[in-house]
Amino acid sequence: MEQSKVSALPRVVIIGGGFGGVSAARALKNAPVRITLVDRRNHHLFQPLLYQVATAALTPSEIARPIRRILRHQQNVEVILDEATAIETARNRVILAEGEVAFDYLIVATGATHSYFGHEKWERDAPGLKTIEDAIEIRRRFLVAYEAAEREPDSSVVPEWLTFAIVGAGPTGVELAGALAEISRMVLARDFRRINTRRARIVLLEGAPRVLPAMAPESSDSARRQLECLGVEVITSAMVTAIDEFGVTYAGGHIPARTVIWAAGVAASPIGKTLGVPLDRAGRVIVNDDLSVPGAPNVFIIGDLASIKQSDGRPVPGLAPAAVQMGRHVARNIVHATRGEPREPFRYVDKGTLATIGRGAAVAEMGKLRLGGFIAWLAWLLIHIFYLIGFRNRILVLAEWAWVYLRNESGSRLITGDVEPLLERSRRDDEDRHRVMAQ
Amino acid sequence: MEQSKVSALPRVVIIGGGFGGVSAARALKNAPVRITLVDRRNHHLFQPLLYQVATAALTPSEIARPIRRILRHQQNVEVILDEATAIETARNRVILAEGEVAFDYLIVATGATHSYFGHEKWERDAPGLKTIEDAIEIRRRFLVAYEAAEREPDSSVVPEWLTFAIVGAGPTGVELAGALAEISRMVLARDFRRINTRRARIVLLEGAPRVLPAMAPESSDSARRQLECLGVEVITSAMVTAIDEFGVTYAGGHIPARTVIWAAGVAASPIGKTLGVPLDRAGRVIVNDDLSVPGAPNVFIIGDLASIKQSDGRPVPGLAPAAVQMGRHVARNIVHATRGEPREPFRYVDKGTLATIGRGAAVAEMGKLRLGGFIAWLAWLLIHIFYLIGFRNRILVLAEWAWVYLRNESGSRLITGDVEPLLERSRRDDEDRHRVMAQ
Repeated sequence: MEQSKVSALPRVVIIGGGFGGVSAARALKNAPVRITLVDRRNHHLFQPLLYQVATAALTPSEIARPIRRILRHQQNVEVILDEATAIETARNRVILAEGEVAFDYLIVATGATHSYFGHEKWERDAPGLKTIEDAIEIRRRFLVAYEAAEREPDSSVVPEWLTFAIVGAGPTGVELAGALAEISRMVLARDFRRINTRRARIVLLEGAPRVLPAMAPESSDSARRQLECLGVEVITSAMVTAIDEFGVTYAGGHIPARTVIWAAGVAASPIGKTLGVPLDRAGRVIVNDDLSVPGAPNVFIIGDLASIKQSDGRPVPGLAPAAVQMGRHVARNIVHATRGEPREPFRYVDKGTLATIGRGAAVAEMGKLRLGGFIAWLAWLLIHIFYLIGFRNRILVLAEWAWVYLRNESGSRLITGDVEPLLERSRRDDEDRHRVMAQ
Repeated sequence: MEQSKVSALPRVVIIGGGFGGVSAARALKNAPVRITLVDRRNHHLFQPLLYQVATAALTPSEIARPIRRILRHQQNVEVILDEATAIETARNRVILAEGEVAFDYLIVATGATHSYFGHEKWERDAPGLKTIEDAIEIRRRFLVAYEAAEREPDSSVVPEWLTFAIVGAGPTGVELAGALAEISRMVLARDFRRINTRRARIVLLEGAPRVLPAMAPESSDSARRQLECLGVEVITSAMVTAIDEFGVTYAGGHIPARTVIWAAGVAASPIGKTLGVPLDRAGRVIVNDDLSVPGAPNVFIIGDLASIKQSDGRPVPGLAPAAVQMGRHVARNIVHATRGEPREPFRYVDKGTLATIGRGAAVAEMGKLRLGGFIAWLAWLLIHIFYLIGFRNRILVLAEWAWVYLRNESGSRLITGDVEPLLERSRRDDEDRHRVMAQ
């Protein structure tokens, strides 16, 4: 009896365990549905703090948590580790790497990845930052760069190892630049004997005329000043034309840098293409006002994959709060649908935008309010601690931060994986270059 | 003046930043020498807790610390990230992957790695546990096994995913078996919907007639009882003859298991061979009583790479306390040598042996004292916390443990890296097997 009742419940499939997917699942906690959440990773990631893993301030486990652990008490959810490769709306099926899964309602929350705007070969020399693996790779590169500088016999090459170029001055680029400047000047200084890590050059390149182009001009000015106080060189209106293992070339100059990080472009998850509906220029699905896919009212798109406008005509931004709001909204509309009630259109509530720059440095916009410096940073800190609720290691993260803040000491500067290939590569590159120069 | 005085000081090169190498460097803190410590990894590892990373109880950063951070205040040390490939005693040079380094005194502390006794092809299906990377790989495999079981459509295959075979019942094998049994029964139970993780089979295979063969028979009996209480199946006198992706075959039976871990053999670091002096059967360098190499009085071997007997004729065991004692002893003898004083022979002080089995379960031997159960576990806990001194995250580790102990919750069950190849492999293997079975 119980069994047949359960299997008669509508099946909601959620693809993606990020902010949107997990919010939707939680909001359906008491709904008369069976939920299957599919993700190709086993963990939910607190992405706003990913740059702190990339700069060795936090460890991967402090900002990531198994999805099935987050949802363990919610009996109407099962979690499957698999990769969704396509959506067949006509058959109500999601195609997985292993088999397929049928749905009555589908929520697609697969987010975005970084994009090199057609220059995919730049990825080798300028990794982007979207996953825990990306963060570990960036951490490895920047820590190995100091090690390589310390043992570099050719003193003319040392400055190249100690130059870090970041392409793109959106929130991620700004956060990375500020954090790298701080760790170089404060945390690492006493660890090395031959090099002076305070001399490290952090260069932030932005194609637009100002940093944080999505924020107000006052915020951009404030952020730039705060970055420069930390010793970051900011170059705006700099369109990058080439990236290789020796640095970044832009219209107007060249930065010799052995470490380049890509924080410039974002492209929507490719699964959107399999829906066969119109996409916007960034590859996002242009959704109806209830977040459903045109022609497939039981399929919803939320988070960074959804292209939808606010009432004032501006697009809903690709931020965690927007994904959370969308997840909850779609959950509500699914409940409406199961009851035969009409659906509600989605309205984004903008609670403000924050970008942190460093210790005590940030910019914030809340409504008409513009904040900069320590107060903005305090707002950033409180909001991030608040949203880490649900992460049981919130207190540990806070302890980490307090320690780093008070002692200028960072605890997780692990280089894992093999460092030799990287050092090896640099040596081979040098040989190549010398050969080229000798020609 | 200052400069020429410094460069006139004898140069001590230390290869390896484990317990032995770091202890030697620290013990030379006030000695009139210049020290270069070379390691191919940037971190010192608290190896006795490595199994806790492999079983997701602790995170890598909690048991590893950058070597240059540990030695940052010791101005007579420089740390170089590089791999030593050979030692030329005649020229007083260490050959590195990048260049070479000259020494007046050399301390070789490169330790041991796991050995497959000539069956190197077993490594693919039965990884060993010596490095952080090994621990992350084992953690990935055992977490992926539960995920694979949860989504396995063929119910006859599910028990194979839920069987974990550990080869070798030394301290590492016993610790791994106990920890896997606990996490399966307690921590993971509520996270899955289709499988019952309490049904997971943990099988511990040992070639000798008893577990912990290096300890006293009473301790072995006690450990076996405690393991069986946790639900571990212990099979002794089981010589393994084959390992593949479907399990372990031993003289007397076969265990179908999709996850196999190798904790059986240890071989000394291969750099010992380049010295051109006699080695013991495990590849360790047979050293003089002052730990120097025969024919090379300025070259010392410490830790797991040294083969030396105690006064009662038994070998000095390959344990962290022995490596620490050797490191300090060699440092003292180098100071003696710089002053033209005679050297002292090394005497190992056995402070006892401990092996932990699980929450509140352990065995301990101190002199004639034999302890088992909770008291032994408490001794283990206190000693390990004490020796984590110097690790600033000691308090965080303690907080982690308290949390895990009280709440049965483990916080770091991250699967990083790509899970698809593993799952992919298993699928391909199934196809292969079906093909074989159809023939």
